[in-house]
Amino acid sequence: MAHYKLILAYEGTAYAGFQRQAHKVTVQGTVEDALRKLGWQGRAIMASGRTDSGVHALGQVISFNFDWKHGTTKLVKALNANLPSDISAQHAMEVPWAFHPRYDALRREYRYRLYFQPERDPLRDAFAWRLNRAPNLSLMNEAASLMLGSHDFRGFGRALKEDGSTTREIFEVDWKSAGDEQHFTIIGNAFLYHMVRRIVYVLVKLGLEELPVEIVKKGLTEGETGIVSLAPARGLCLMQVEYPESVFSENLKVD
Amino acid sequence: MAHYKLILAYEGTAYAGFQRQAHKVTVQGTVEDALRKLGWQGRAIMASGRTDSGVHALGQVISFNFDWKHGTTKLVKALNANLPSDISAQHAMEVPWAFHPRYDALRREYRYRLYFQPERDPLRDAFAWRLNRAPNLSLMNEAASLMLGSHDFRGFGRALKEDGSTTREIFEVDWKSAGDEQHFTIIGNAFLYHMVRRIVYVLVKLGLEELPVEIVKKGLTEGETGIVSLAPARGLCLMQVEYPESVFSENLKVD
Repeated sequence: MAHYKLILAYEGTAYAGFQRQAHKVTVQGTVEDALRKLGWQGRAIMASGRTDSGVHALGQVISFNFDWKHGTTKLVKALNANLPSDISAQHAMEVPWAFHPRYDALRREYRYRLYFQPERDPLRDAFAWRLNRAPNLSLMNEAASLMLGSHDFRGFGRALKEDGSTTREIFEVDWKSAGDEQHFTIIGNAFLYHMVRRIVYVLVKLGLEELPVEIVKKGLTEGETGIVSLAPARGLCLMQVEYPESVFSENLKVD
Repeated sequence: MAHYKLILAYEGTAYAGFQRQAHKVTVQGTVEDALRKLGWQGRAIMASGRTDSGVHALGQVISFNFDWKHGTTKLVKALNANLPSDISAQHAMEVPWAFHPRYDALRREYRYRLYFQPERDPLRDAFAWRLNRAPNLSLMNEAASLMLGSHDFRGFGRALKEDGSTTREIFEVDWKSAGDEQHFTIIGNAFLYHMVRRIVYVLVKLGLEELPVEIVKKGLTEGETGIVSLAPARGLCLMQVEYPESVFSENLKVD
């Protein structure tokens, strides 16, 4: 038996989110089913965090204990042979028993895509939010930069546990043009429930000059913006989760 | 009653190709169903050409006669309200009765996408061919340039009708890097059945140095390459179809 960290990519469109649910098809349930076909007998995999229904990932991190004799390259190939085409194992490594993809995570990076067309583009509509016109990048970057550092983000999302802390630290924010699209990158230590989608919604409305920049200041100081709308899930992608090198450098073999 | 030209975009993944078939879901059948919900009573729409199962389009052109009183902008909106999310009307215009999207077409532009990763990327695997390593762009461009001009392409595809001509004219070919992908653009007056996918397969194998450049010369002069494989349909997209301005400039109202 060993403990594996595995990087997972998925298109979230067809799934009721990451987390396993009794009567719904979820990413976690589908991955666990594929692992069981390889002989895994564990109860549940662990993950860096949950993603909402329709949200994608290129760098979701999961971990699980598994008695697998054939090496990590063959583990990735065997899993992919048993996963549907909208989920894919990217890379696996053996890690110390103490590794936990959620509690050990230092930084989480999300990307949000916007595209601009009068009618939907079927080749990217599952991966980006369609708008009729492009919001102002400078306005969005100016407002986003107010979020850098540690703040109480309860005005932009809620804690996963009742009475959980709503303070989060944001390390990087960046809106940029990418061909005929705009992409937003946000990197933080962790995010509240719906936090990235609500931030994107507020910033886009700011960029379209339908909301004043002051609403971000208000949200950060008063914990309330009055905005309940969210940017669509399909524009969001979990890009990567970073860990301190030290969690991987313990001796793997202790016997 | 008027004659409409309409630009259609679709993700081909879920469809048994463009052309209507009795017991299969096709793009044509789905668009005709949507038109009928708006009151259309025609027998069939016309198209610039058929696309294979899994092939996408951003600029497929269709035409149909329709007694529609509300203008072309509302026609596009009404169709999109009745089409599934993987098909979308982009633009409509009223055209002369004589316009035919296939026979009047001057140039057809296709794009083929390659991406390079050891395991599939679920966010683009439906739209691009995954390879483990990148083929040599210079080799591919050198070989592709041999195809420019008028040639008998029977070594790279077959005529749609038995005894149909297999001569086609190629106006532009170009392989280029696009981020971590490579994209091939090919523009010709028309294409044989499977021609673009067979050309891409041969060029990619050339670029990977698994086939000699001479095979393209052989195909063009002897009408035979010995290659029967095709690049996967999912990497291919019909980008646009161009018409001479004159077909649109006749007086629309003749009464």
